[in-house]
Amino acid sequence: MKGPIVLLTDFGHADGYVGTMHGVIHARCPDVRVIDLSHDLPAQSVKAAAFVLWNAYKHFPKGSIFVCVVDPGVGGERPIVALETEDYAFIAPQNGLLDYVMAEVPVKYFFSVENPRFMGPQISNSFHGRDIFAPAAAQIAAGDPITQIGPIRPYHIPPSPFQALSASQPGEILYVDTFGNLITNWRQGEIQARAFRLKGKEIPVKAYYAEAAEGELLALPASHGLWEIACRNGDAASLLGAQTGTSVEVLME
Amino acid sequence: MKGPIVLLTDFGHADGYVGTMHGVIHARCPDVRVIDLSHDLPAQSVKAAAFVLWNAYKHFPKGSIFVCVVDPGVGGERPIVALETEDYAFIAPQNGLLDYVMAEVPVKYFFSVENPRFMGPQISNSFHGRDIFAPAAAQIAAGDPITQIGPIRPYHIPPSPFQALSASQPGEILYVDTFGNLITNWRQGEIQARAFRLKGKEIPVKAYYAEAAEGELLALPASHGLWEIACRNGDAASLLGAQTGTSVEVLME
Amino acid sequence: MKGPIVLLTDFGHADGYVGTMHGVIHARCPDVRVIDLSHDLPAQSVKAAAFVLWNAYKHFPKGSIFVCVVDPGVGGERPIVALETEDYAFIAPQNGLLDYVMAEVPVKYFFSVENPRFMGPQISNSFHGRDIFAPAAAQIAAGDPITQIGPIRPYHIPPSPFQALSASQPGEILYVDTFGNLITNWRQGEIQARAFRLKGKEIPVKAYYAEAAEGELLALPASHGLWEIACRNGDAASLLGAQTGTSVEVLME
Repeated sequence: MKGPIVLLTDFGHADGYVGTMHGVIHARCPDVRVIDLSHDLPAQSVKAAAFVLWNAYKHFPKGSIFVCVVDPGVGGERPIVALETEDYAFIAPQNGLLDYVMAEVPVKYFFSVENPRFMGPQISNSFHGRDIFAPAAAQIAAGDPITQIGPIRPYHIPPSPFQALSASQPGEILYVDTFGNLITNWRQGEIQARAFRLKGKEIPVKAYYAEAAEGELLALPASHGLWEIACRNGDAASLLGAQTGTSVEVLME
Repeated sequence: MKGPIVLLTDFGHADGYVGTMHGVIHARCPDVRVIDLSHDLPAQSVKAAAFVLWNAYKHFPKGSIFVCVVDPGVGGERPIVALETEDYAFIAPQNGLLDYVMAEVPVKYFFSVENPRFMGPQISNSFHGRDIFAPAAAQIAAGDPITQIGPIRPYHIPPSPFQALSASQPGEILYVDTFGNLITNWRQGEIQARAFRLKGKEIPVKAYYAEAAEGELLALPASHGLWEIACRNGDAASLLGAQTGTSVEVLME
Repeated sequence: MKGPIVLLTDFGHADGYVGTMHGVIHARCPDVRVIDLSHDLPAQSVKAAAFVLWNAYKHFPKGSIFVCVVDPGVGGERPIVALETEDYAFIAPQNGLLDYVMAEVPVKYFFSVENPRFMGPQISNSFHGRDIFAPAAAQIAAGDPITQIGPIRPYHIPPSPFQALSASQPGEILYVDTFGNLITNWRQGEIQARAFRLKGKEIPVKAYYAEAAEGELLALPASHGLWEIACRNGDAASLLGAQTGTSVEVLME
């Protein structure tokens, strides 16, 4: 894995924590490109991180190394793991952050990050992003084989978060984005939807945002491959009082 | 045009949309530098985008490729255009975003972006930043001639947004920045101002912020070449209840 | 000093000011890496900038050039200085921003930035980040000796902001981070603390966040080498009504 290194955290930008991770990586592997995927995830929301990672990773080049730090258990007993797939490496706490990726793509290796060569000289109890995650990714990008990062670790493949056609249960909102768009767990290819129902409201399918009137709700097959509930030039989440986990039904053609 | 590629959007940083554009560019053209100009523009404010772009572009090196995505019409019929000037390339929806630049610098070519070679393998209806804008810029940076991006397209040169000395109309606030500074459309070189009047308040000219007392309003010739109304260590916009479009008069020496 | 160049400002991300600094640097020195440390510092808070810089700089590689622009006096008489240490260069207004660094690491040279070769072609009165700071850093990274940046300037070493064991005074909160964690000026190595007292409340020492119960206050030896007051999955600053400058006592073992 030669990079780029892709960073995903809930650290925000104010305190310099992310910039420090860039510095640590650059010190260890000056040539690797470092890309910020997001640092404004809702604090400690592992589920939001899992979605944002899943939505993005497939658009990065082969060899990308994803460093994911949403880590309420930092300093405690939770393991840090490294997942290798055919095309990518992922480093994350073992807390569900990689679930959506692992439900989609075959695991090649799954390691526990334990080799001190892949860590900084001192390990604090509160900032493993700087002391473990960043050095580990840089070490891999610098050419150290990921197989030496630590022992192989057992894992299980989580169930798919995406709604199957045959499900008798309603689907749900998986993620709410910055604009208040509501991303459901209904896959586009699997259903012929004419509308969705959420909080008792029936929302018609349109092909794109601008097909709806200003302020009108619509459902559309959006860029992630899932059905999305949106409001033209507005915020569907506050309009509907919906959030992650809100249930949503499909009305078939 | 060999880059850098400069990104300007209203996507915010939370959802990973911008990071994904970086990934798409890096996959197609690993060597080009990518610079984030702003992603925190007010949502769907084409006018704010036009100002921020105009204020910044001239400070970038020759060969820069600006990718501008404030695009309320995404997925609909609005064209995506590529503007080539002597020194730069710009890719944007044809919605006024390039107006201030086009009012300032001669157009060399103006294209409609239509060639699939400059696009991603699949085009969603909601994320053209990832599927069209980013690939197009990367393709140009990788050496593909911009003349092949699509057919030449008619255009008109918009009127200058900047106030001329002879105008009998008052000027207006063009842009309000993060600090609440009010940027007018009065050009510095053209007028000998002793004060400005806004919302009935007369605001004296000073040479720099620190020449005013703490909390005092001042007008100054600021870094963009326009006259600016500011408040020393305060927020002039909320103090005056002013916003983009608020009218402002000049009082001559 | 060959870089990277590390940027620290209170400019925010919305207006394109930071992106413009990247453009200016890239135009003058295309090969140098530019890392954003933070641009979301509280506006004009020199003390917050001093802390964030101090907390981060030691994790960057030798040769890093730090460009620090929290500058309420921009355009006025305050000097811009360049500090060279054994490993790093720092460019900042002379307003206390470099105090924590200078209290920790020996000064090699201290210059006044005055040589026009290290500046842009035009110097505005409101955006020295673009017109002086960015060009100066790029010029150094491009190989121009920092000794030519301007005349040597007198300086004094500020007192250490960190609490000594023998102090009879209580310590204080130095910095409040995004999560509401309260960073004290008590150094970890110097005291055997069993608890801290803040606003009349006794807060027990724990080894890491996850050792406290959900919503519980704790004091921990955190990643910066100082004692920190935190709340497990909560915001200690709002819970305690504490801020920068709030006094805090240590209770020894």
